[in-house]
Amino acid sequence: MKRKMKMGMIGGGPGAFIGAVHRMAAVLDGQIELVCGAFSQTPEKSKAMTESLYLDSNRVYNNFQEMIEREKFLPIGERMDFVSIVTPNHMHFLPAKLALENGFSVICDKPVTLNSQEAEELAALASRKNLTFALTHNYTGYPMVKEARSLIRNGALGKIRKIVVEYPQGWLAGPLEKTGQKQAGWRTNPKEAGISCCMGDIGSHAENLCEYITGLKISALCADLTTFIDGRLLDDDGNVLVRFDNGAKGVLYASQVSVGEENSLMIRIYGEKGGLEWRQLEPNTLLFKKAEGHTQIIRTGVGPLSAEAQMHTRLPPGHPEGYLEAFANLYRNFAAVLQAKEMGVATDERMDFPTIQDGVRGMKFIEAVVKSSQSEQKWVSL
Amino acid sequence: MKRKMKMGMIGGGPGAFIGAVHRMAAVLDGQIELVCGAFSQTPEKSKAMTESLYLDSNRVYNNFQEMIEREKFLPIGERMDFVSIVTPNHMHFLPAKLALENGFSVICDKPVTLNSQEAEELAALASRKNLTFALTHNYTGYPMVKEARSLIRNGALGKIRKIVVEYPQGWLAGPLEKTGQKQAGWRTNPKEAGISCCMGDIGSHAENLCEYITGLKISALCADLTTFIDGRLLDDDGNVLVRFDNGAKGVLYASQVSVGEENSLMIRIYGEKGGLEWRQLEPNTLLFKKAEGHTQIIRTGVGPLSAEAQMHTRLPPGHPEGYLEAFANLYRNFAAVLQAKEMGVATDERMDFPTIQDGVRGMKFIEAVVKSSQSEQKWVSL
Amino acid sequence: MKRKMKMGMIGGGPGAFIGAVHRMAAVLDGQIELVCGAFSQTPEKSKAMTESLYLDSNRVYNNFQEMIEREKFLPIGERMDFVSIVTPNHMHFLPAKLALENGFSVICDKPVTLNSQEAEELAALASRKNLTFALTHNYTGYPMVKEARSLIRNGALGKIRKIVVEYPQGWLAGPLEKTGQKQAGWRTNPKEAGISCCMGDIGSHAENLCEYITGLKISALCADLTTFIDGRLLDDDGNVLVRFDNGAKGVLYASQVSVGEENSLMIRIYGEKGGLEWRQLEPNTLLFKKAEGHTQIIRTGVGPLSAEAQMHTRLPPGHPEGYLEAFANLYRNFAAVLQAKEMGVATDERMDFPTIQDGVRGMKFIEAVVKSSQSEQKWVSL
Amino acid sequence: MKRKMKMGMIGGGPGAFIGAVHRMAAVLDGQIELVCGAFSQTPEKSKAMTESLYLDSNRVYNNFQEMIEREKFLPIGERMDFVSIVTPNHMHFLPAKLALENGFSVICDKPVTLNSQEAEELAALASRKNLTFALTHNYTGYPMVKEARSLIRNGALGKIRKIVVEYPQGWLAGPLEKTGQKQAGWRTNPKEAGISCCMGDIGSHAENLCEYITGLKISALCADLTTFIDGRLLDDDGNVLVRFDNGAKGVLYASQVSVGEENSLMIRIYGEKGGLEWRQLEPNTLLFKKAEGHTQIIRTGVGPLSAEAQMHTRLPPGHPEGYLEAFANLYRNFAAVLQAKEMGVATDERMDFPTIQDGVRGMKFIEAVVKSSQSEQKWVSL
Repeated sequence: MKRKMKMGMIGGGPGAFIGAVHRMAAVLDGQIELVCGAFSQTPEKSKAMTESLYLDSNRVYNNFQEMIEREKFLPIGERMDFVSIVTPNHMHFLPAKLALENGFSVICDKPVTLNSQEAEELAALASRKNLTFALTHNYTGYPMVKEARSLIRNGALGKIRKIVVEYPQGWLAGPLEKTGQKQAGWRTNPKEAGISCCMGDIGSHAENLCEYITGLKISALCADLTTFIDGRLLDDDGNVLVRFDNGAKGVLYASQVSVGEENSLMIRIYGEKGGLEWRQLEPNTLLFKKAEGHTQIIRTGVGPLSAEAQMHTRLPPGHPEGYLEAFANLYRNFAAVLQAKEMGVATDERMDFPTIQDGVRGMKFIEAVVKSSQSEQKWVSL
Repeated sequence: MKRKMKMGMIGGGPGAFIGAVHRMAAVLDGQIELVCGAFSQTPEKSKAMTESLYLDSNRVYNNFQEMIEREKFLPIGERMDFVSIVTPNHMHFLPAKLALENGFSVICDKPVTLNSQEAEELAALASRKNLTFALTHNYTGYPMVKEARSLIRNGALGKIRKIVVEYPQGWLAGPLEKTGQKQAGWRTNPKEAGISCCMGDIGSHAENLCEYITGLKISALCADLTTFIDGRLLDDDGNVLVRFDNGAKGVLYASQVSVGEENSLMIRIYGEKGGLEWRQLEPNTLLFKKAEGHTQIIRTGVGPLSAEAQMHTRLPPGHPEGYLEAFANLYRNFAAVLQAKEMGVATDERMDFPTIQDGVRGMKFIEAVVKSSQSEQKWVSL
Repeated sequence: MKRKMKMGMIGGGPGAFIGAVHRMAAVLDGQIELVCGAFSQTPEKSKAMTESLYLDSNRVYNNFQEMIEREKFLPIGERMDFVSIVTPNHMHFLPAKLALENGFSVICDKPVTLNSQEAEELAALASRKNLTFALTHNYTGYPMVKEARSLIRNGALGKIRKIVVEYPQGWLAGPLEKTGQKQAGWRTNPKEAGISCCMGDIGSHAENLCEYITGLKISALCADLTTFIDGRLLDDDGNVLVRFDNGAKGVLYASQVSVGEENSLMIRIYGEKGGLEWRQLEPNTLLFKKAEGHTQIIRTGVGPLSAEAQMHTRLPPGHPEGYLEAFANLYRNFAAVLQAKEMGVATDERMDFPTIQDGVRGMKFIEAVVKSSQSEQKWVSL
Repeated sequence: MKRKMKMGMIGGGPGAFIGAVHRMAAVLDGQIELVCGAFSQTPEKSKAMTESLYLDSNRVYNNFQEMIEREKFLPIGERMDFVSIVTPNHMHFLPAKLALENGFSVICDKPVTLNSQEAEELAALASRKNLTFALTHNYTGYPMVKEARSLIRNGALGKIRKIVVEYPQGWLAGPLEKTGQKQAGWRTNPKEAGISCCMGDIGSHAENLCEYITGLKISALCADLTTFIDGRLLDDDGNVLVRFDNGAKGVLYASQVSVGEENSLMIRIYGEKGGLEWRQLEPNTLLFKKAEGHTQIIRTGVGPLSAEAQMHTRLPPGHPEGYLEAFANLYRNFAAVLQAKEMGVATDERMDFPTIQDGVRGMKFIEAVVKSSQSEQKWVSL
């Protein structure tokens, strides 16, 4: 009989942002419960989460090593089934590796590691252990992203020619990291964030989104990264020309200094027969542009939609679904795979989620972008 | 020590729509867990929910009477703390009354009863028992609705002069109830829905929203209800002139035959100094129009916002919050009151939610609208 | 051989607003030239326009009586072919009557007169003299308004059930008329504006637009007019329930105290099979909502469009056409009728424009609205 | 005394598109009249325009050489004051040169010539002859473009960091030139269009717009041009990384294969303190994004605006102004300079328009883009 999956969280302690997002997303559909956590490497900070999360204090651990070591001796059904890693970038690899080595599946925030070698090591390990590794490129969880992908797969656009994907934000337009703001602090710190700030944090979302929707791969790119804030050690803006493996061309850009922008992720895709436009800030609308005839407004839950879109929609038309619902789609699908494995049944492949392979791809993208930006050569292969 | 509140659900069995919404909204913030239910008056349908909700089969009851009778003998901490009533309208009063009589607080879908007498009886009972009664006029849970209310309270608009509130839908533009569609069936059936379909189901949301945001009360109205579909027994469209207790004037309309509309709830409010516009389909945007100067786009989580808006926002700027999050705000605030009562502490009054008093008001509004529509007299008082 | 039509203008002197609009609209398509004018009843103000309009000083007259008396003795081809009346409301009837009596066709601003009797007198006179009388309900000149009308005529919506038409403005939210502002002054003065300010000035546009697009007639109405500004003598806001001659219901409202609104004329029309939505502030977009399938964005010049829309579009797709172009469509069509009459040929009836019959209708609407607002009776016939 | 300026047109014969635009734009404000033309190099096609334009048949010439030769002997006040050149690109240089040599000022469509040498020759000639040369980069004529420029000049954004300007169209997504469509034919023909189709025709608008608004100059670029349609001889799409002379970075792209796009010219500019966003398809709206506080919606004619915006706005708030009005602003300002020269007075420098210097700049941009696209070197200076 199917049972709720039990989650142990690594990271997400006091003052964190994304930890709470993961917790809400995990429980939304009633398939997962949080049973334990190592919310910080500082034991007292980890313990501080016990009451507010209504956890058994014995299962709020001092650090992730302790959690993994102790949980693995609990019986199945009681022990955690997987770990959710919500720490800054530099703290993804070690806990993920340890979890996998001890038989726990992993769902991890992105970018997955500090470099592509680490990502490939995790990929190999997950494969060897036959464990599931999900990566929370959450934007792929939106129903209208699923619809866009389905339309393209079914040929509605014909051959893809042009892709413009952008992710401007404005929150790092000033030296926020100097104020002690935690999110800004680690993202602009090479030791915690890796070789890129803007491109690593959000450019990689743009890369993942355009490759997911179109099924194409970026084959070459030409990047111009910039650090606009004096004293900042990593890029806070980047513009990239991209070429895809089918001959399509495009532009990918990300920015953290675009004052007044929120998370204005937008993608526009043009093929021989039609075009698509989707914006994360109004995620329930997908514009379908036609070579002949009028542009259609495709809306979550409304009218004829693909099975993929419907499987990722919880509500009837007219009830806006947001960021958490898209995020929860990843958790639900991830849980479904764990449940199916336990029961020895198959899952519907349309209930997909980004995996460690997307993580490897993302790290290679980040590395190529940084390399290109430092080069006088026009094109860098990916 | 604060503990999670335990919920028993009445209604929400196989094929229901709003039950799942309540379940997701209840658990989103980790303050509530579903422990039992009477999901249908048909015992086997109720039982059918056991596995998918991962419930103890002993606590999936044959009917709400059994649930209330049995749960009340369980110890506090184990037994349900409140009931969530998600049945059609005609099945609100009896379970709510029985729950209150047996000491259980209630959160109930709207409209609260079949008529204002029943609503007043519940109000009196809840008051007498010192129990909490929440009503899920969920649209008031949106952060930008809170912001609108706060702006008006703080005088940003000056004296209110004009209010236009509308809720067009298109889903009943054909005789959907004749196809066996469950939602259409009970809403158009006077025995289950009461004296009104369109005005009861969604016109009452419009009434609640405009009175909540402005703090004004509709004092008189002039209504023109219509049934456009042959053979339908209740209204599927209604236009209402409204007058408010401060001298403001306005228009309220609702429709279920406005083809192509989803849940296009919109409110526009104009005062001496400014205007506000909010649309449920893009709920994270509030337009603030100025007598002098440029219109401002106020966005969930962005820039200077009221404490009320911030207290009902989970995510940083740029992460769209939707219908479920607004709905969850009601549940979280309701749970906070129950928790605070148990701990003997006060709650923040800004963490509000609609109550049985809103239910009484809503029933009187529905009755006045139906009376006015049948009258040749221009104005009916409310 | 076809020749340019020659225009004499009445009104539009220094400080006027709509006079310049008429002059630009008249010449845009190269079919009309301004040859003379009586721009003010104050001779020196009229004369003051000579240079800036590059006119022959002999043909800038002291008043409209002089202009009509003198021009009629000039030979055809030299004399003015028609008068354009752009004065405040109370100065429409006399010049229009005198022009018609002396054989000149008329294009006149709206509302056409101070009451329906005057309008009917002009209608009878124009008919008796076989002269052309155009009324500048300019919003009907937009290509997407033509498209909406064509779609409805061709049955795309099925039987019309519901119409919501609104025209909110904010410019009279304060006592602007007390500052000496000329436009506010005459519009709020019963002697110059007639029995209504808001409903006469812009409510009548809403009435004209909804009847033009749908081909339906308002058969009964219930109005609530308000004067929000102390000391103002006419309404500055009005809400109206409307019933149409085919059984459709609706709401019509207009306001001049809706702070922050520009000329936010909007119409939504719902039939059995579809809905339409058009906004004057984005006039090149028409939304076509479907009972089945996705909403279409119909755009000026783009894709398959009716002949009516195409005949009123000057530019290829992507070149926004605005207020002046819509206004110019009326002038161009009016000129085409005059040219065709002279040449003894027929005109294309799709190149239409509002006539004195629309003026009669508008005056009856204004009278019915004012009567209804003063009545305790629910419905007033129209 | 100021007099109307007299225009002679070169090009704009039967089947042309932009000629009619120029004619409408020229006459809108009543400062210019069309007195003669050489509408085609095919004499009978030129003559065919006589009646529809109500011209004196003696002044409809067989070709531009004849027009210039004959008109120069007419007395001032009767003869044309300037020529308007509306032919395909390859027919700009010769008529412009001949007109200038014979003492006529010129207003010319863009791109101004086939290469930068020709453009510089015209610039030198106009300067030597002290004649006025306007180039119709019409998008700079919009009021909200003027407002954007004024805001930046006044420091509202602080130092500019990032610019994204794009001009996608979809009309050449198929081999339209093979159908005999005239506009597609010459634009894709190197002999008539020059070295670029997409970048020359619309990319140059994007370049002109971003440099005009910001006052910055593109100092280096990296381009990737593509021809997506088999057999087409020139680019139909191009993506460009751009660097500006103040250190700002950006993206410029243009496309004629972006199916479903009209003239979707959009610009976003971000500085240290704020951001601006403007879209040609909704030209009366300018978004002003703030580092602190809410985004403002700046609208044509509404609230506090710069003198520059007001001087280029004809109508009160709420009356949409479109493409023709923006285009007419160029003609009006050009005419004002000619009038002022004749009267020996100064003109207001805020009534500006693009000149032959913009033409030289545009040609250098086009040449740099084409060079870059063919190069393996990353950056090409401009």
